[in-house]
Amino acid sequence: MAAAHDTPSAALDSSSGAELLPLRHTSATMKATGTSRPSCCANAPSASSTSLGDPARFGVLTVSDRASAGVYDDLSGPAILGFFGEAVASPWEAVYRVVADEQPLIEAALKDMVDREGCCLVVTTGGTGPAPRDVTPEATEAVCSRMMPGYGEQMRAISLRYVPTAVLSRQTAGIRGTALIINLPGKPKSIRETFDEVFKSIPYCLQLLGGPYVETVPAVVAAFRPPNERRTAKPLEQQQAQ
Amino acid sequence: MAAAHDTPSAALDSSSGAELLPLRHTSATMKATGTSRPSCCANAPSASSTSLGDPARFGVLTVSDRASAGVYDDLSGPAILGFFGEAVASPWEAVYRVVADEQPLIEAALKDMVDREGCCLVVTTGGTGPAPRDVTPEATEAVCSRMMPGYGEQMRAISLRYVPTAVLSRQTAGIRGTALIINLPGKPKSIRETFDEVFKSIPYCLQLLGGPYVETVPAVVAAFRPPNERRTAKPLEQQQAQ
Amino acid sequence: MAAAHDTPSAALDSSSGAELLPLRHTSATMKATGTSRPSCCANAPSASSTSLGDPARFGVLTVSDRASAGVYDDLSGPAILGFFGEAVASPWEAVYRVVADEQPLIEAALKDMVDREGCCLVVTTGGTGPAPRDVTPEATEAVCSRMMPGYGEQMRAISLRYVPTAVLSRQTAGIRGTALIINLPGKPKSIRETFDEVFKSIPYCLQLLGGPYVETVPAVVAAFRPPNERRTAKPLEQQQAQ
Repeated sequence: MAAAHDTPSAALDSSSGAELLPLRHTSATMKATGTSRPSCCANAPSASSTSLGDPARFGVLTVSDRASAGVYDDLSGPAILGFFGEAVASPWEAVYRVVADEQPLIEAALKDMVDREGCCLVVTTGGTGPAPRDVTPEATEAVCSRMMPGYGEQMRAISLRYVPTAVLSRQTAGIRGTALIINLPGKPKSIRETFDEVFKSIPYCLQLLGGPYVETVPAVVAAFRPPNERRTAKPLEQQQAQ
Repeated sequence: MAAAHDTPSAALDSSSGAELLPLRHTSATMKATGTSRPSCCANAPSASSTSLGDPARFGVLTVSDRASAGVYDDLSGPAILGFFGEAVASPWEAVYRVVADEQPLIEAALKDMVDREGCCLVVTTGGTGPAPRDVTPEATEAVCSRMMPGYGEQMRAISLRYVPTAVLSRQTAGIRGTALIINLPGKPKSIRETFDEVFKSIPYCLQLLGGPYVETVPAVVAAFRPPNERRTAKPLEQQQAQ
Repeated sequence: MAAAHDTPSAALDSSSGAELLPLRHTSATMKATGTSRPSCCANAPSASSTSLGDPARFGVLTVSDRASAGVYDDLSGPAILGFFGEAVASPWEAVYRVVADEQPLIEAALKDMVDREGCCLVVTTGGTGPAPRDVTPEATEAVCSRMMPGYGEQMRAISLRYVPTAVLSRQTAGIRGTALIINLPGKPKSIRETFDEVFKSIPYCLQLLGGPYVETVPAVVAAFRPPNERRTAKPLEQQQAQ
């Protein structure tokens, strides 16, 4: 699945195996070393020459009883990491975890990714349906101070073009501190269908929240900002002086 | 109205008259006998030969001051029953009631239909506008443990194709225990416009909630399930052994 | 901006200057006289001959740190007043204020406009984004007894046709007493794009809430009411006898 999108295979393959430990923080590029500061896992070649400060830190949280128990490999988290690899042009790094469909575990992971790991964006996948074990929206709402209703609406509207049961998704999004938390669908195919469209607004959202200035690869995602909110790349020292 | 959709007229005619007693449980096919277990009120001919277990039990709750007071006959509840008659291929039976626009009465009826009557699906009609007496969404939210925002969004989007005031509807949907409760519009015409589309996702939703496996008449409603969630009809004993 | 829509320039010009005092009630046509009962600020010529009772009272609340501090002139409030001037055919008058992005100030203004000023409709502009200072939806929800989710959905769907970041808007609407409060976007261009469509349902909503019978200029906004809810203009005494 991920390979079909031409993602950096080294990063993804290394993360989809043994290090998918539930409740254990792992980076997408590191082999479960347990370090709390994973290094950057994907830099677009064009980004390194025009530094825009510290890499943006993205959290990817797969919520799945079976993936967390090792019954099967998680394909959804790697699909999201693959999307970042294709779509994000400025420096970024990722924190990737897999947890079971338990509200306290999901809440703890979201809080840790935002508060301790410093993620400006946390993307979840899984656990948004109507089944009793699906509690990702509840966990998301519990850790957010304000909700962003537009994302749930937009993703359901997009997915409804493909399948009538998209209406069953309870996906939501919200803000914790200066971070955006957003629930994506559970299936890699649906992730891609929605995220391609939804990601157009995320870099500007992160900017409004006081986060990093994220740039996209226009051929993949045409991120939008109002003209007066656009920056041109400049040396790091100039940026910090602003 | 209902006749225009070619519904089984016997069932509907018998229910649209004297037995529309407010706060009194009546089945769509029984003449206000007061029994608490109405028998099956509509079986598609094809269903009886391939038994899929107990009939699915659907609740229909008309919320209307005037219909409950007998000022006029309820057309909306029978329109929903007529829809089930046309659209549902597997065995089903209905519990049908009419209550006034009073939040405690609506809540009590919803609880009783789910908790005591064992309905896996309760469909309301009426009481979703902005007027002070419209309290069906509040009653629905009060008795549900989790909400399904997609249904309200989808029904408003559908109805907006027909009339700009569809935006005024506050329709919602949610889950109580293992049952889905969904607010339909108040007018038979709007019920049909939305339910034709919305019902495509309901059988799979009921399945995810642990309820019965409901099958539809494809020519009326093309219900969708992911391929690996589809069952072929099999003898009852096999089913129970699963 | 407003001029491009051919609004009555006298009313708007007089309001876009010195009288934009934060937390100070001013009418759109009066030069900050401090009176608490501004007179009618725009009557369509056709309306005066067929009196429909007291003018409908509309509140316009611009929420903006910079406009309230006088850093720049508010263009959004006048754009809304200009829209009323073009679109509303029956008598109306407006209460117009500008406040900073502070939740207590916004709540106080909304309450005062509804409870003391008797507005049947209050339209806000600004403060609906994800930035930490954007708190207009929170203030709106805090003063409303019930929400109208359809308006936020509809406005985001409309604005998404123009710009992908429309999904970031947290616009909402709700009911306080017998008044409708609705959050419009912050930019005059977006206000116009959404309000042209959204206003079609507002006169009927006000009627359902027990408010005045507002008529529109069909060439500008084709307001919709169900046929049996339509009135023909009649003398005031007849109206009051109803």
